[in-house]
Amino acid sequence: MSNYKLYSYWRSSTSYRVRVALHYKEVEFEAVPVHLINNGGEQNAPGYKKLNPMASVPTLVKDDFTLGQSMAILEYLEEKYPRPALLPDDIEAKAYVRQIMNIISCDIHPLNNLRILATLTNEFGLNQAQKTLWYQKWIEQGFTALEKLMQDSSFYAENSPYCAGEEITYADVCLVPQIYNARRFEVDMDAYPILTKIEQNCLLHPAFMDASPEQQPDTPDDQRPRFLRD
Amino acid sequence: MSNYKLYSYWRSSTSYRVRVALHYKEVEFEAVPVHLINNGGEQNAPGYKKLNPMASVPTLVKDDFTLGQSMAILEYLEEKYPRPALLPDDIEAKAYVRQIMNIISCDIHPLNNLRILATLTNEFGLNQAQKTLWYQKWIEQGFTALEKLMQDSSFYAENSPYCAGEEITYADVCLVPQIYNARRFEVDMDAYPILTKIEQNCLLHPAFMDASPEQQPDTPDDQRPRFLRD
Repeated sequence: MSNYKLYSYWRSSTSYRVRVALHYKEVEFEAVPVHLINNGGEQNAPGYKKLNPMASVPTLVKDDFTLGQSMAILEYLEEKYPRPALLPDDIEAKAYVRQIMNIISCDIHPLNNLRILATLTNEFGLNQAQKTLWYQKWIEQGFTALEKLMQDSSFYAENSPYCAGEEITYADVCLVPQIYNARRFEVDMDAYPILTKIEQNCLLHPAFMDASPEQQPDTPDDQRPRFLRD
Repeated sequence: MSNYKLYSYWRSSTSYRVRVALHYKEVEFEAVPVHLINNGGEQNAPGYKKLNPMASVPTLVKDDFTLGQSMAILEYLEEKYPRPALLPDDIEAKAYVRQIMNIISCDIHPLNNLRILATLTNEFGLNQAQKTLWYQKWIEQGFTALEKLMQDSSFYAENSPYCAGEEITYADVCLVPQIYNARRFEVDMDAYPILTKIEQNCLLHPAFMDASPEQQPDTPDDQRPRFLRD
């Protein structure tokens, strides 16, 4: 039994990314829930901030090794547990996968983080409708770019099941949680046929099933699928 | 002579990151200026968006290989030109470097991008003072975390010249351009003694000098250091 702990939150898409990678590579871990809202946000507790000075989830801990930032964790897991791979071997294909990872992790996700939405409300007075516009805008801009990038790329063919062809990669691992967020905020996913097809393919894989927000130790009961309750 | 083209903007901190890496690894390239403000933003021109569907800089191009997203470009350059290295060999040290890279590239920089500031003004009516607060907030939050992370890390010792010890890494390559942005927006850098000491050390290296915003082909004349004019 490995002794990794993953400090994480059921619905955080960055936690979701890392859970998929851990399950895909069959690395055992214990999820330690960090509730992002209760108690003023448990990520802000001094004890947690010693592990993660950005006060964000996830954090991966094993003995005295502590690592925050989901993208750094994904790269770490790939180096530590290279097989099954989640990055292609070919340098150019790998660069294409990282381009997709970074459109999601740098150009979409950071803008819609909890601390950003709280600031828009509390310091700049945005109302709910304005926050929805804000949220949707960055997802739509990013997803439009991703569809275009894949259409034009030699690494994606029309019938490829995944972002980079026949194999699941970190591009898919980052995409699926971002689509989960998009659905929460009522983005019209019909506009992105390539992305939704890839999502549906990924969701058939056990690693994505096991990592899904609906079935984590800290998932509230009313958010679990009916067949998993009781 | 290599035939890399780097589509970039003199003052873009993501372009600056990639320029440092190219100079450090002595990879020849031609800078192709993309003016982010003139002509409604040249990054929005259809021709450019074919190269980079996110309409962002930088984009690295060589023959039919095209790569957007500065973080993907940095990783690509490390794999293609491994020496001199900009990532440590040790897996845990490398993870620490990527944690710093990602605090900057995911938690600080994306919030202060031109398209975000334009949206805050044009769609949500923030005035200049509010935008300055916004800008400074994310830098201050991120820089505070970085100082803490380094103080507590075994990879950084009190007298280390750089983020990860004795050698320049991508952590430094991402940090210096972010500090350049912080100074532009009048963040009080006295609060971050570790970061400013590292910045001063980096700025002595020719790769950082050659990559600096003050001396690019598209740097406006009045932004060049006095000794370089005429």
